[in-house]
Amino acid sequence: MDRPGRTGLLTDRYELTMLDSFVRDGSAGRPAVFEAFARRLPEGRRYGMLAGLGRLLEAIERFTYDADELAWLQEEGVIGAETAQWLTDFRFSGDVDGYREGDLYFPGSPVLTVSGSLGECLLLETLVLSVLNHDTAIASAAARMVDAARDRPIIEMGGRRTHEEAAVATARAAYLAGFATTSNLAAGRRYDVPTAGTAAHAFTLAHDTEADAFRSQVEALGVGTTLLVDTYDIAEGIRTAVEVAGTDLGAVRIDSGDLAEESHRARVLLDSLGATRTRIVVTSDLDEFVITALADAPIDGYGVGTRVATGSGHPTASMVYKLVAIADAPGDPLRSVAKKSQDKASVGGRKQTFREYDDAGILRAEWFTGQDAPVPEDRPARTVQVPLIRVGEVVHRPSLAEVRDFAAASLATLPADARTVAAGPPYLTTTLREESTMNEESKRALIVVDVQNDFVEGGSLGVAGGREVAGRISAHLGAHAGDYALVAASRDWHRAGETNGGHFHEPGEDPDFVTTWPVHCVQGEAGSEYAPELATDAVTHHVVKGMGEPAYSAFEGVTDAGERLLDVLRAAGVSDVDVTGIATDYCVRATALDAVKAGFRVRLLDGLHAGVAPESSQAALTEMAAAGVEVAR
Amino acid sequence: MDRPGRTGLLTDRYELTMLDSFVRDGSAGRPAVFEAFARRLPEGRRYGMLAGLGRLLEAIERFTYDADELAWLQEEGVIGAETAQWLTDFRFSGDVDGYREGDLYFPGSPVLTVSGSLGECLLLETLVLSVLNHDTAIASAAARMVDAARDRPIIEMGGRRTHEEAAVATARAAYLAGFATTSNLAAGRRYDVPTAGTAAHAFTLAHDTEADAFRSQVEALGVGTTLLVDTYDIAEGIRTAVEVAGTDLGAVRIDSGDLAEESHRARVLLDSLGATRTRIVVTSDLDEFVITALADAPIDGYGVGTRVATGSGHPTASMVYKLVAIADAPGDPLRSVAKKSQDKASVGGRKQTFREYDDAGILRAEWFTGQDAPVPEDRPARTVQVPLIRVGEVVHRPSLAEVRDFAAASLATLPADARTVAAGPPYLTTTLREESTMNEESKRALIVVDVQNDFVEGGSLGVAGGREVAGRISAHLGAHAGDYALVAASRDWHRAGETNGGHFHEPGEDPDFVTTWPVHCVQGEAGSEYAPELATDAVTHHVVKGMGEPAYSAFEGVTDAGERLLDVLRAAGVSDVDVTGIATDYCVRATALDAVKAGFRVRLLDGLHAGVAPESSQAALTEMAAAGVEVAR
Repeated sequence: MDRPGRTGLLTDRYELTMLDSFVRDGSAGRPAVFEAFARRLPEGRRYGMLAGLGRLLEAIERFTYDADELAWLQEEGVIGAETAQWLTDFRFSGDVDGYREGDLYFPGSPVLTVSGSLGECLLLETLVLSVLNHDTAIASAAARMVDAARDRPIIEMGGRRTHEEAAVATARAAYLAGFATTSNLAAGRRYDVPTAGTAAHAFTLAHDTEADAFRSQVEALGVGTTLLVDTYDIAEGIRTAVEVAGTDLGAVRIDSGDLAEESHRARVLLDSLGATRTRIVVTSDLDEFVITALADAPIDGYGVGTRVATGSGHPTASMVYKLVAIADAPGDPLRSVAKKSQDKASVGGRKQTFREYDDAGILRAEWFTGQDAPVPEDRPARTVQVPLIRVGEVVHRPSLAEVRDFAAASLATLPADARTVAAGPPYLTTTLREESTMNEESKRALIVVDVQNDFVEGGSLGVAGGREVAGRISAHLGAHAGDYALVAASRDWHRAGETNGGHFHEPGEDPDFVTTWPVHCVQGEAGSEYAPELATDAVTHHVVKGMGEPAYSAFEGVTDAGERLLDVLRAAGVSDVDVTGIATDYCVRATALDAVKAGFRVRLLDGLHAGVAPESSQAALTEMAAAGVEVAR
Repeated sequence: MDRPGRTGLLTDRYELTMLDSFVRDGSAGRPAVFEAFARRLPEGRRYGMLAGLGRLLEAIERFTYDADELAWLQEEGVIGAETAQWLTDFRFSGDVDGYREGDLYFPGSPVLTVSGSLGECLLLETLVLSVLNHDTAIASAAARMVDAARDRPIIEMGGRRTHEEAAVATARAAYLAGFATTSNLAAGRRYDVPTAGTAAHAFTLAHDTEADAFRSQVEALGVGTTLLVDTYDIAEGIRTAVEVAGTDLGAVRIDSGDLAEESHRARVLLDSLGATRTRIVVTSDLDEFVITALADAPIDGYGVGTRVATGSGHPTASMVYKLVAIADAPGDPLRSVAKKSQDKASVGGRKQTFREYDDAGILRAEWFTGQDAPVPEDRPARTVQVPLIRVGEVVHRPSLAEVRDFAAASLATLPADARTVAAGPPYLTTTLREESTMNEESKRALIVVDVQNDFVEGGSLGVAGGREVAGRISAHLGAHAGDYALVAASRDWHRAGETNGGHFHEPGEDPDFVTTWPVHCVQGEAGSEYAPELATDAVTHHVVKGMGEPAYSAFEGVTDAGERLLDVLRAAGVSDVDVTGIATDYCVRATALDAVKAGFRVRLLDGLHAGVAPESSQAALTEMAAAGVEVAR
């Protein structure tokens, strides 16, 4: 049978419009790393089983475009001529690493890591997700059914309930998860999945009598076949089946009624007829829950259709594919990136995953470190990912039988309570290893807010303890400057001779110390200089703010080069921000809150900030903590 | 892009093992009719929308096998050489009729009727169901989303959540149900579905700043593009978007957070920035319920992914494909067949469906009659089915745009309360038209039980009223013999000179009138003859029972030709049985109960039976009624 051909169009339009932009602006060739993972498991599931990898690797090999397709993409306005040229003779030439097919996964497990040029990695997104989300959903449901069935074999027969090609993938995924056979012939032909199946009700109906139908089937398939006995009356059907096939009849199938009751009756009847070795196979709306409920019934095998083909209530695995690292140009170091939008945060950086097991071989933890971090040696942990593609060549091609064995071995590492069908939370969540960070030396920034003469003792708005804080910040920098990718120091930088947008009190009026203030930090005057106790050698970015306007947060300022602080932090790949400076209850507060809002993980460093008044400082600490700032109390 | 090739193996093994039996026993060429229909709609749905027909007809055209596949099927033991020969150069050469793609359907609607040889019709089962079940599930969910969105356009973007080929079918089905566009390029290429899509979060993350990303996108796609504004902070993103693209910016997309709240804020902000014509598109876990809840939000378009690709909780339409009629040989009349197993009964016969509408054009009823029944003229009703394939050639090829228009027109025939997303029962159920039956003259049988001399007044076990009942049965036959496909009359037919297995009292002992009886109905003696009041001209099958054994039910007997009554009834396609005769509390009771058990619809004809004793007769009536016999009280 024909295999599907090129896969280059099995993708979303926006992958190609993005590529078009990247080709135009010259960034398509930037080194990049994408990661596929699931933020969560389906409700109630304790583990997932990764599937689809074998299909995916083949599909990536076929991810190409022919001239007609490229012409069509241009006609449709999806890409321009330059991108069409870029895609001519395109094939993926990067690296793919991942969990093995049949392996377990949990929320956060980086199951697939795709490295290469930004353009080529991006292009694969839709295809990667389609294949993994579908096949993984099937295998994850199937594995639970296999557990529920104990050692009784299960036939996959759901092809008619799902798209005709999804049916083939379903058979493959269910088989690797432990199903015994499939009804789907294409899966047998393409993937060597053992096939099974004998007759439907139509077969009996098409004959004048049930006995005629059974005779015809036995003649064709031998007495070892499975006869479907419930077209009319089950007991009558069983009697006829044994009359026709004799007591060596292989099996009877029951596809309706109360299966627990009917299987009991059938066993008694078969035994009374002398067909003591004839097996009983049941079908009809089975899933892991029904199979569990039938555990005590005299059933020898199950056929599962709709529920396995639809993932038993969860037809997709909800995996996502995210850019986690990028470099400016080939040869440059990768920096981690992470999205911060609500509910959809991700951890940046390329990851290596490890698992810990107890003495009985039971999985106890899964965590990752940065790809280039040294392999931890303090705890016995095994690596999880394997190389799948190297420089565009598939280097991992286990047979489906090997995948199936690996899946069974993986399941055996779960404790019994994670293998029941009872609903529960994920058995574990895969996270960054405690006490480590991704790309530790490159992602954290320090912001030193307004440690200026006018804000320390003796200044026009002097804060008590300001000079001491300045000294402590210097000491902190002396010890930890190397931990920061970037150190930004902000200064109020107001204009002389004006109120700076009402920030200074009007001449003749008193400042209210809420929105109007005494004149302070005027550009070029001594009050605006850094306090002498602050060592500024390690400061990489000097930020000024308030030029003609009120400005509390350092995020309102710009660097010497005129860049906004936020853009500087993002360009540097910063994910974490430490905030220090003066005054806790005004500019420090505003800066920390803006940093949280921009999506950074933010700490207010204990002892490295000073406030105007105890009450307002305490209120500010409470507000910052509520907003998500890590505040030492 | 390549289209999938041959589809002959996209099927279940048992279709081919059944074919193999049919080829061996010579029945593969018998004329047959199969029907696809859904017994029920997904819980809470009020209608379904049929989809997949265009894909199915193409797939049927490609339903062939090559020599390698046939060799493989033989190696695998699926078929023998004779069947391999039968399949060489096979292509479907029968007829297909059906509802139009995009039409509504309800429980019982015969959406597809496949006529041809038994072998070729059977072979198509799995493929028919795979395509219709998948695509119909998508279209049925999509139609509700389109209604919920009112006139706001919806982009289908679920391809990454489903099998890569199912993704293409999903885009097609959603589009025909009313979606405006799809993200899936292959659907654009294969089916001319309009495609849409601009950029993902990765695009923004890959640039140093959000502004850089927006600039790059606007440069490539113009200011009319849609900018994704929630990678970091939505308000900031909107400001940056308008800064970069100006107030002619086409749209902003929000993919996270509380979409009602965020869209309101975005509208206010866009308006305040002067971008009053910039549209707001929202995405993120939308379905018909969320879209309904967002009805009052200032949203201009939706993107729906996972939920449409997974049928919004119902990823398969649960259609089945059943043999409904068969003939013994080419040229012979088709007789209807129906399965009776518990919960899975079906109505036999080839059907023609009609719909009735009210003056406002609203659909009010859908019902079917037998294919060959005259078109009813008493009520203005329109036919539903159209010819799709004639003698193997596809004769119905509407464009997808035409299908989409037809779907919209079909939806418009539903009343408003059937078009809300609120859960409810099916708007209607499609059934056999009242007061008509399928193949009326051929499916009902009459059984006349034991109207013999020994059981009427004057006989050895004479029942009071027996002769009157015999006369009434004769009158009934005089008026209604033509209504019956078959009239069977049974007789007790015991052997002389023995107890017939303890049925007659032992010589010297008295009968207990429970399990032992006086000698009666001995073969060849006058007592075993039909009572003279019974007219037997219309009797088509004479059944005798009790030869050497006790026998109460007529189903224990055999015809003159030695056939069991049950086999005779089934071979005749009988679905309904009327029971009459003597005695209500013994042989009539046993016959009626056996008939129910065999799956027939059974009536005990009032006044046409007589019992031994009032008490036991009443008990028998109660028992029969409880078992499902229609008993006049």
